[in-house]
Amino acid sequence: MAGISMAQACDLVIFGAKGDLARRKLLPSLYQLEKTGSLHPDTRIIGVGRADWDVAVYTKVVREALETFMKEPIEDKLWKTLGARLDFCNLDVDATEHFSRLGKKLDQQSRVTVNYFAMPPSTFGAICKGLGEAKLNSKPSRVVMEKPLGTSLVSSRVINDQVAEYFHESQIYRIDHYLGKEKVLNLLALRFANSLFASNWDNRTIDHVQITIAEEVGIEGRWGYFDKAGQMRDMIQSHILQILTMIAMSPPLDLTTDRIRDEKIKVLRSLRPIDLSNVRDTTVRGQYIGGFVQGEKVPGYLEEKGANKNSRTETFVSIRVDIDNWRWAGVPFYLRTGKRLPAKCSEVVIYFKNPTLNLFRDSYQKLPQNKLTIRLQPDEGMDIQILNKVPGLDHRNRLQTTKLDLSFTETFNQADAYERLLLETMCGIQALFVRRDEVEEAWKWVDSIMEAWEVNHEMPKPYQAGTWGPIASVTMITRDGRSWNKLE
Amino acid sequence: MAGISMAQACDLVIFGAKGDLARRKLLPSLYQLEKTGSLHPDTRIIGVGRADWDVAVYTKVVREALETFMKEPIEDKLWKTLGARLDFCNLDVDATEHFSRLGKKLDQQSRVTVNYFAMPPSTFGAICKGLGEAKLNSKPSRVVMEKPLGTSLVSSRVINDQVAEYFHESQIYRIDHYLGKEKVLNLLALRFANSLFASNWDNRTIDHVQITIAEEVGIEGRWGYFDKAGQMRDMIQSHILQILTMIAMSPPLDLTTDRIRDEKIKVLRSLRPIDLSNVRDTTVRGQYIGGFVQGEKVPGYLEEKGANKNSRTETFVSIRVDIDNWRWAGVPFYLRTGKRLPAKCSEVVIYFKNPTLNLFRDSYQKLPQNKLTIRLQPDEGMDIQILNKVPGLDHRNRLQTTKLDLSFTETFNQADAYERLLLETMCGIQALFVRRDEVEEAWKWVDSIMEAWEVNHEMPKPYQAGTWGPIASVTMITRDGRSWNKLE
Repeated sequence: MAGISMAQACDLVIFGAKGDLARRKLLPSLYQLEKTGSLHPDTRIIGVGRADWDVAVYTKVVREALETFMKEPIEDKLWKTLGARLDFCNLDVDATEHFSRLGKKLDQQSRVTVNYFAMPPSTFGAICKGLGEAKLNSKPSRVVMEKPLGTSLVSSRVINDQVAEYFHESQIYRIDHYLGKEKVLNLLALRFANSLFASNWDNRTIDHVQITIAEEVGIEGRWGYFDKAGQMRDMIQSHILQILTMIAMSPPLDLTTDRIRDEKIKVLRSLRPIDLSNVRDTTVRGQYIGGFVQGEKVPGYLEEKGANKNSRTETFVSIRVDIDNWRWAGVPFYLRTGKRLPAKCSEVVIYFKNPTLNLFRDSYQKLPQNKLTIRLQPDEGMDIQILNKVPGLDHRNRLQTTKLDLSFTETFNQADAYERLLLETMCGIQALFVRRDEVEEAWKWVDSIMEAWEVNHEMPKPYQAGTWGPIASVTMITRDGRSWNKLE
Repeated sequence: MAGISMAQACDLVIFGAKGDLARRKLLPSLYQLEKTGSLHPDTRIIGVGRADWDVAVYTKVVREALETFMKEPIEDKLWKTLGARLDFCNLDVDATEHFSRLGKKLDQQSRVTVNYFAMPPSTFGAICKGLGEAKLNSKPSRVVMEKPLGTSLVSSRVINDQVAEYFHESQIYRIDHYLGKEKVLNLLALRFANSLFASNWDNRTIDHVQITIAEEVGIEGRWGYFDKAGQMRDMIQSHILQILTMIAMSPPLDLTTDRIRDEKIKVLRSLRPIDLSNVRDTTVRGQYIGGFVQGEKVPGYLEEKGANKNSRTETFVSIRVDIDNWRWAGVPFYLRTGKRLPAKCSEVVIYFKNPTLNLFRDSYQKLPQNKLTIRLQPDEGMDIQILNKVPGLDHRNRLQTTKLDLSFTETFNQADAYERLLLETMCGIQALFVRRDEVEEAWKWVDSIMEAWEVNHEMPKPYQAGTWGPIASVTMITRDGRSWNKLE
């Protein structure tokens, strides 16, 4: 297929071959990459785990995963090629001496080793040590790891330090799968290829920005795991701050990896700190109680299976963020994310200021604002809400809001975020991955909020499942004379 | 119907009751206004002409006109009401003494007299004199007249002076039916209610503007009439310059009649004069020769019925206009209009400048420009062409143009331009009519071009029917590194 990149020849090593991430995401993505001809003919895929499997057993496991988690039937021809790439290495990541077994399966002369850590971050140190001791860490070999790394600045530093002991930053690919989404990537094109937006992208024209990631689902059987993290770490620290940086960053010198990251880190550094002095005015944390989602009765967070009735973990956060730089001074970014909300959706809404003078004041005391909505999911697309004259004979200047619409859903060529990110690791391009200083700057800002909550003994405010979070979230934005975007 | 204005009680006097304009446009529009309940119950419609008719005959003529020129069947109930408003006055406009007959039919106490001149401009002086001598000219009575008035500044002044002898400017309604079009009116809303455009509407962001009025038809049996006027007087002097002023005007103090006209006249005054020094570089005049339109063979302009084989009248004009004011310095407006072009369409296209730096230079040496297209006819609507990332796995920054689209065709509530303008005259609102100084300023600019053509003995360049005019028109814009918008 034209325009699809062909990756380098790789040994793709999947640590955590039996795990959820590998089975649900990585293997189906590899199948799709096979289909688009993106995998180098010599590329091999090596599952790693403590199971006492051989290639044959592993091949069966992979086949089962594809059948379970792919929506389309498996084509024989593709399976034959993909199956032939598979291998398995029995290895306990805590047993450093086992790693020489892995070394024997690799061809470091003619293939690039890409180590994908599909395991909990607590194991990353051990894996890196094993790889290092077995001399499997030299360039161009790479490590790929899922965010969030750790649960705070301190714990993320520990992990980053452990990894850094054996791998250089240029070998490290930290995944935030939101950065693999088509519409998130498109933000660069939208902002920097279109003067209509580029020339308007600052506090002279933009009034405020809203970023929403809403989930309909609750805990989905992962109560214990989620309860340790909470919505702040799970969503704000990673995905939402990444989207925010893509919206707020200044134009980079060019579109190469580090020039983009340089601008993103500048945004993170200019986030106004939230601490004891302002946490009550600028943040709301919530926890859902029983209610109805899409007409179905659902339990509250504390009634979920496995719940600790005393948990204070938040399942909803909304935050007013101020970006203290020249471009965004005076333009708040409102962030909102939660579980058991009325709809599943991720979107960014840019609200433009009103024209400097309201010529239509006889009909409207306040004009509705122009609004650019970028829908990240479920139906990718964008629209611009503008004002037009109400058609008809009326000679008064009556206006109506209308939408200029652009939907991407009809486009076939959509690739899953993991497909794209896997391919990038195999191409050796880091632009869509998160640099260490970004992760740490994000943690620093998030830690400050969480500490302030802790010191204040801030209890999460209850909200009924199927609503848009606690009333306080509405109050927060209403105080500023604004309101949350209504999803349609 | 909500929002529809009810006019004052009027005596609507139609001079030229038998004529084409009255039968094709005015009477069907009055029927529609009856339908929307916009006519005051006491309003009467008085046909005026030399014919020896009485009310009964005139009523039959009106009925026939409606049946011939309306697309919908006539509703009995509406016809009953409308028919009861009709009257006829036998009157020769050159016989001043006849006008007292008209006076007897009017009720100047309880109704406003609205005199609609649906006759050639050469008769306007006589009509005004007749009305004046019969004392039918005092306020609030009004006169309504069709543009273009005259064929030059001098001849338009003659007419305007004749009218002004008996009527104050505030009583005079000069029609340019383009100002009654929904989408032309919407330009005010679009520009001044939307900060997304308002903040971009100048030479910092806009590269250039194109205004096209293209006709598929040829002369339609009006050779003699058209040959005296030509495309410049027929289209540029009136409609296109009006559209240009709506696009280019600065924000008015408010939306009242004279505040809007004040800004429009400022645009006309800042048009850079075209004379002998620059006419060859900035204008192209053409005349069609035989060719094919929509697959059908059509004759050339000089082969049309009634043609004078030596005619030098232009059927096509394109002009590069520079507006020498602070807002538009350096932003050319390209105008283009002609008969026997490949399509019937009126549109305005705003081309935005490219972003100041091309970050996508690896993929595009020059980025396609953002483009706002406002379609005035046949399918009213607008779209914005922007650049987005090509979806798919490719990690290079490949872009594609996509459109945000807003179509107005589904809106029912569309009113014909004449309906709106007739209603406005009966409401006494002058905002959509052209002030004397506007007409004269437009003529001044147009005269200068036509004089330069005359002095240069500029022959119209031939173009084949069914093409976009002479090659020189393409060359003119190409010289500036730009190209005419391709219609889809």
